[in-house]
Amino acid sequence: MTDAKIPYSLNSKAVAEATRLWLQKRGVTLQEIAELVMLLQKKYYPNLTMEECIHNVEMVLSKREVQNAVLTGIQLDVLAEEGKLFAPLQDMIENDEGLYGVDEILAFSIVNVYGSIGFTNYGYVDKLKPGVLERLNDKTTGQIHTYLDDIVGAVAAAASSRIAHRKQAEREQELGLPHAPEDAEEAARRSSLENTEPE
Amino acid sequence: MTDAKIPYSLNSKAVAEATRLWLQKRGVTLQEIAELVMLLQKKYYPNLTMEECIHNVEMVLSKREVQNAVLTGIQLDVLAEEGKLFAPLQDMIENDEGLYGVDEILAFSIVNVYGSIGFTNYGYVDKLKPGVLERLNDKTTGQIHTYLDDIVGAVAAAASSRIAHRKQAEREQELGLPHAPEDAEEAARRSSLENTEPE
Amino acid sequence: MTDAKIPYSLNSKAVAEATRLWLQKRGVTLQEIAELVMLLQKKYYPNLTMEECIHNVEMVLSKREVQNAVLTGIQLDVLAEEGKLFAPLQDMIENDEGLYGVDEILAFSIVNVYGSIGFTNYGYVDKLKPGVLERLNDKTTGQIHTYLDDIVGAVAAAASSRIAHRKQAEREQELGLPHAPEDAEEAARRSSLENTEPE
Amino acid sequence: MTDAKIPYSLNSKAVAEATRLWLQKRGVTLQEIAELVMLLQKKYYPNLTMEECIHNVEMVLSKREVQNAVLTGIQLDVLAEEGKLFAPLQDMIENDEGLYGVDEILAFSIVNVYGSIGFTNYGYVDKLKPGVLERLNDKTTGQIHTYLDDIVGAVAAAASSRIAHRKQAEREQELGLPHAPEDAEEAARRSSLENTEPE
Repeated sequence: MTDAKIPYSLNSKAVAEATRLWLQKRGVTLQEIAELVMLLQKKYYPNLTMEECIHNVEMVLSKREVQNAVLTGIQLDVLAEEGKLFAPLQDMIENDEGLYGVDEILAFSIVNVYGSIGFTNYGYVDKLKPGVLERLNDKTTGQIHTYLDDIVGAVAAAASSRIAHRKQAEREQELGLPHAPEDAEEAARRSSLENTEPE
Repeated sequence: MTDAKIPYSLNSKAVAEATRLWLQKRGVTLQEIAELVMLLQKKYYPNLTMEECIHNVEMVLSKREVQNAVLTGIQLDVLAEEGKLFAPLQDMIENDEGLYGVDEILAFSIVNVYGSIGFTNYGYVDKLKPGVLERLNDKTTGQIHTYLDDIVGAVAAAASSRIAHRKQAEREQELGLPHAPEDAEEAARRSSLENTEPE
Repeated sequence: MTDAKIPYSLNSKAVAEATRLWLQKRGVTLQEIAELVMLLQKKYYPNLTMEECIHNVEMVLSKREVQNAVLTGIQLDVLAEEGKLFAPLQDMIENDEGLYGVDEILAFSIVNVYGSIGFTNYGYVDKLKPGVLERLNDKTTGQIHTYLDDIVGAVAAAASSRIAHRKQAEREQELGLPHAPEDAEEAARRSSLENTEPE
Repeated sequence: MTDAKIPYSLNSKAVAEATRLWLQKRGVTLQEIAELVMLLQKKYYPNLTMEECIHNVEMVLSKREVQNAVLTGIQLDVLAEEGKLFAPLQDMIENDEGLYGVDEILAFSIVNVYGSIGFTNYGYVDKLKPGVLERLNDKTTGQIHTYLDDIVGAVAAAASSRIAHRKQAEREQELGLPHAPEDAEEAARRSSLENTEPE
């Protein structure tokens, strides 16, 4: 837990920007992640647009828990690429060792941000490796994406879960159902914004 | 994943209300959960108020993932109290069997909603059983709270994590730091509210 | 944690037998689960036999953590089939509601028993629904398998992870590599058996 | 998943030895971890010996999943100590940032190896920081143990869960109960050992 007295101070914006920057440096665009989301969700929501998919990917990436996992994973990939990890960790990450599962563990901390309904989508794209995931898995490039590969799939799965939650809220509003809990949260948030309180 | 075509339709408000109702029926007040939050957090935030604690407990309880776990856990407690589970599940839940850990698993799905920083707080209150948790653990009442006990601790731990995230945002605003990502999300949400979009 | 003084006493054999019995009652055979394992693993181990797959499914099912999840999940399915849960939990489980994810949470506690490398396999079979999973997902039978469906996929994924660990041990033995840690555990276990110690 | 055809070959013994070596290099002894286990378990098992605690810690450390987490966590600590991570990850790990939870995530992958019953014990020692954990948390030494601190608590919690499972098996044997499932696994393992098969 944070202790308010220590001089070090977290700069949340720097963490968010580093996340975006490092994804870009490692060659992954939001558009590509959004394409995975579209692939996973168009069957359920035929009218889903790429703009919505991109927006939901951005919202997932705005979560601190997700940023921590993205930065830690990319850092380990980069260090493995530079050969700077100690053996045998170097070997395991460099070779995407099947019995090394810490990459999956970080990926799961991302999926979990929108709950367990994303587990299935994560496993599915991680197995089939569509789109950007195929490129990240190409072992002939000299680049190492042992972590990023799983992380990108996890961000897409989390964005899919977020869409499922939002679409349900939309549906209930259209049916004229009384405000759902998420609306209550929003109302609370809106009033707190009006009072310029941080929450 | 939801299929938009089936006639059954989820009523989110009913789920939210059932959650609140069943907590009440089982004798747990928001005030009591908020007291656990205060116990966990006052050391870090001396100015924390009970109103803030209650508000954060409410926000945790407004999450669908949390509602699902609360309802499922209480249902199993109630059925065990009525002796309606099949042996040996009946015995294990009735006796809060040490090697039965599904209650901890549901509790963890609640803690996870605000990320891994809540793990420690959950374990701490679950071990020490302060306040309401002591009452829920009293095995002499005839009531069975094998699940609810862990669930209440988990809601308190999740609310503590939520507070830690919000307090950091406050601190950064006071320091005049550029808007953090959570603010960005809020701005997006506010503008969508103005356009009466559901997200 | 277990308190040695309470009169109630867990009977592990009864838990193990109930697990096997209830899987059978709900129409799932070990053979069918083993077929999912074969589907997931034959690509990696062309010589894998059905006997090995069945053996690994049995080993997964011998774990207490797995038995707890299987029994709890099947109990909830059965109660939903009998209409005995309180609304709205009854509706959500009866209709395999997309935003209800407690079934996935239980499934994950099973996959986790052999570590994170099973996450991908679980998601994959849960999405594609091959073999027995297709039957469990048939919503026209009147039976409810909201939990069992995910549980069976999870047992198959866990057995796949177990095979991956064992095959690596075999490979290292063939290469004449010094004994791996799992061997050390086995040696310890063997000597303890000789001394008729419980571990 | 491992592909049997690639030239890289995992050396499990090297992974196990590196785990033990790095714990030692970072100043943590098995004895110290065992003392945490004793602290957590002596209340439940008054006759528990330090030898048993050490043995159970060793068994936890023989698990691949645990070794992966230990090595990855220590690697990140060491790199942070050397100032070799990119900002802002460097800052967050160096300062044990409260909103950075990847250390807890790795710790949980360790606890999970013996199931959810260890969650509580982990949170408890992580909050109270007894024994070795107090030393690892001393921020005045120049050493960084952001990960190791949580990892050591997690190994102790997992060893506690292992003990709970074994003690139950002992109890049932003493009561003359028919062989429990773990015995079945052991019998299978013993016969496979007699046939010099790897499993």
